[in-house]
Amino acid sequence: MENELRRDPVTGNWVVMTRNDTTVDEMVKSWRVEYSLIDEGECPFCEGKEKETPPEIFALRKNYSLPDTPDWDVRVVPNKFPIFQIHGALDSTGIGVYDKMRGVGAHEIVIETPQHTDRIESLSLDQIKDVLHVYKERILDLKRDIRFRYILVYKNFGPSAGAVIPHSHSHIIATPITPWRIRVEFIGAKEHYIRRGRCIFCDIKQQELDSMERVISENNYYLAFAPFASMYPFQVWIMPKEHNAFFEEDVENLPSLAQIFQEMIGRIAEVLKNTDYIYAIHTGPNMLAKLVRSRWKTIEEDFHWHIEIIPKLRRFTGFEIGAGFHLNPVFPEDAAKYLRF
Amino acid sequence: MENELRRDPVTGNWVVMTRNDTTVDEMVKSWRVEYSLIDEGECPFCEGKEKETPPEIFALRKNYSLPDTPDWDVRVVPNKFPIFQIHGALDSTGIGVYDKMRGVGAHEIVIETPQHTDRIESLSLDQIKDVLHVYKERILDLKRDIRFRYILVYKNFGPSAGAVIPHSHSHIIATPITPWRIRVEFIGAKEHYIRRGRCIFCDIKQQELDSMERVISENNYYLAFAPFASMYPFQVWIMPKEHNAFFEEDVENLPSLAQIFQEMIGRIAEVLKNTDYIYAIHTGPNMLAKLVRSRWKTIEEDFHWHIEIIPKLRRFTGFEIGAGFHLNPVFPEDAAKYLRF
Repeated sequence: MENELRRDPVTGNWVVMTRNDTTVDEMVKSWRVEYSLIDEGECPFCEGKEKETPPEIFALRKNYSLPDTPDWDVRVVPNKFPIFQIHGALDSTGIGVYDKMRGVGAHEIVIETPQHTDRIESLSLDQIKDVLHVYKERILDLKRDIRFRYILVYKNFGPSAGAVIPHSHSHIIATPITPWRIRVEFIGAKEHYIRRGRCIFCDIKQQELDSMERVISENNYYLAFAPFASMYPFQVWIMPKEHNAFFEEDVENLPSLAQIFQEMIGRIAEVLKNTDYIYAIHTGPNMLAKLVRSRWKTIEEDFHWHIEIIPKLRRFTGFEIGAGFHLNPVFPEDAAKYLRF
Repeated sequence: MENELRRDPVTGNWVVMTRNDTTVDEMVKSWRVEYSLIDEGECPFCEGKEKETPPEIFALRKNYSLPDTPDWDVRVVPNKFPIFQIHGALDSTGIGVYDKMRGVGAHEIVIETPQHTDRIESLSLDQIKDVLHVYKERILDLKRDIRFRYILVYKNFGPSAGAVIPHSHSHIIATPITPWRIRVEFIGAKEHYIRRGRCIFCDIKQQELDSMERVISENNYYLAFAPFASMYPFQVWIMPKEHNAFFEEDVENLPSLAQIFQEMIGRIAEVLKNTDYIYAIHTGPNMLAKLVRSRWKTIEEDFHWHIEIIPKLRRFTGFEIGAGFHLNPVFPEDAAKYLRF
């Protein structure tokens, strides 16, 4: 029994339906109970436990060590409980007004450090650089599979529900459709490009650098700021100053990126008292995939990669869930002021 | 200091920035602490406490009782802590690539019963009918204000954060922009209408009635089902069988609507063990508002009002927050089966 992708016939939004074998009572209970953190002794992500994960896909290794043995810096393994399965055809099917396809894709885990319980903000600059480098390598590799339209890198720091491995890790997901929020950005960027002939993100960058009201930090190559219409309190964007649609192709300035990324994660942890957060890399789509190249013809000119960091601070209300209208109790100018400290 | 509406220059999404005077430490603490429920003795929504709310806007009263006195069935008052302020012009302003306007709108509270701690599912059929009738009256009245493009009715059952009044109530918000998810539905419905000449929701209704796989209940005039691409587990839609864009104009079959609505809320409470939930009424926009009539010319033909009920069961992960890609661990066919019990 595998997962299934279904398209909302009104909004065009795709949803992943995941299978599970439990009863409704067990499900409701599992969503309500507090999570339990896995102890260090049980952690399959620690150095020395390499046989407890599925065979590794990629690793930065030291001393010519062999795959699935100790002596590594960053390790990538398939998720044991993947949202998407790697094998098979999409089998896109129409049923009247509805569309569905099989949950084909990839779901990999990036183990960011061999040490247990490391928060990413406590890693050294070199370690952060390694993690970012691994993200790039995996995106470039997964983009060779033309079934995948998009490769999403994200981290979910802090438990959502269930049994949780606290060992610092992030996710890479390759999907046969472009995720909703990314697609909405592509559409908006394309519209701006058609109307003005410019990249909307370059315009934003220029305006932020002119006003400095929402800028938190910058270095030679990157800018970190609180977006003008932040949906979440203390939301932060990091983007390259030079136009570039693809995160994975922006390889020359990795030390600068690692620096500003480490700085932002650290400032958020400091100001918001080690709050949970997520980050996601919004990069261009897979231009080798069918339909992507024809639909997003100008993506190289109109899109501009960026990293979104979103602290998990407040629960949504009915206004947000029922109508998609976000409330943000912190003006981004204030968020920037706090985060500059 | 009032709230502000800001438009995301990439996605076109508007966000409400709300003011508050607390420090960042106090904010973070208030988002983290568990809520506290206001005691019955302190509840401003109970019968006999009418002077503790702002003066009432509307009420269903008995025995010719006077406003802001006891002897009522349903009472509507302004929210003491409104998201939007009723007075003033929008002052829509462009700043470079950004757009903002003042947080002008209305925010009313519908007190659904004079009795404390009533859950809406414990109200009588007549009381539910009264509540639905009041929603209609308030929407019709607020639509006379041409500054408001949309009137949103929603209920947030169960605390989000902070001090919470458990006395059964819902919200009515009039907004100078169309809320995001509603707007996305309008766009999708319009596209389908242009391409096929039919209402997409009528097509959905027909397909659901043909297959019966996801239908939970129906009566002469309304259908309740689990949508094919439900974003949330156990999400339920109630929609009229006859085409109608506007909830507030669908007045003739109120007893049938109250019946199926009460039934659905009751079934969700039963199966999901009194879980928290939200519901929101998705109706057509305010055709008197500038731009609405020209932008949504065919809304009467292409849109179809419906009520969404969404149980609050699981927290979002980075996949959902960072990319807007929803995971649903319960197939809607299974949800329908459980809810039919």
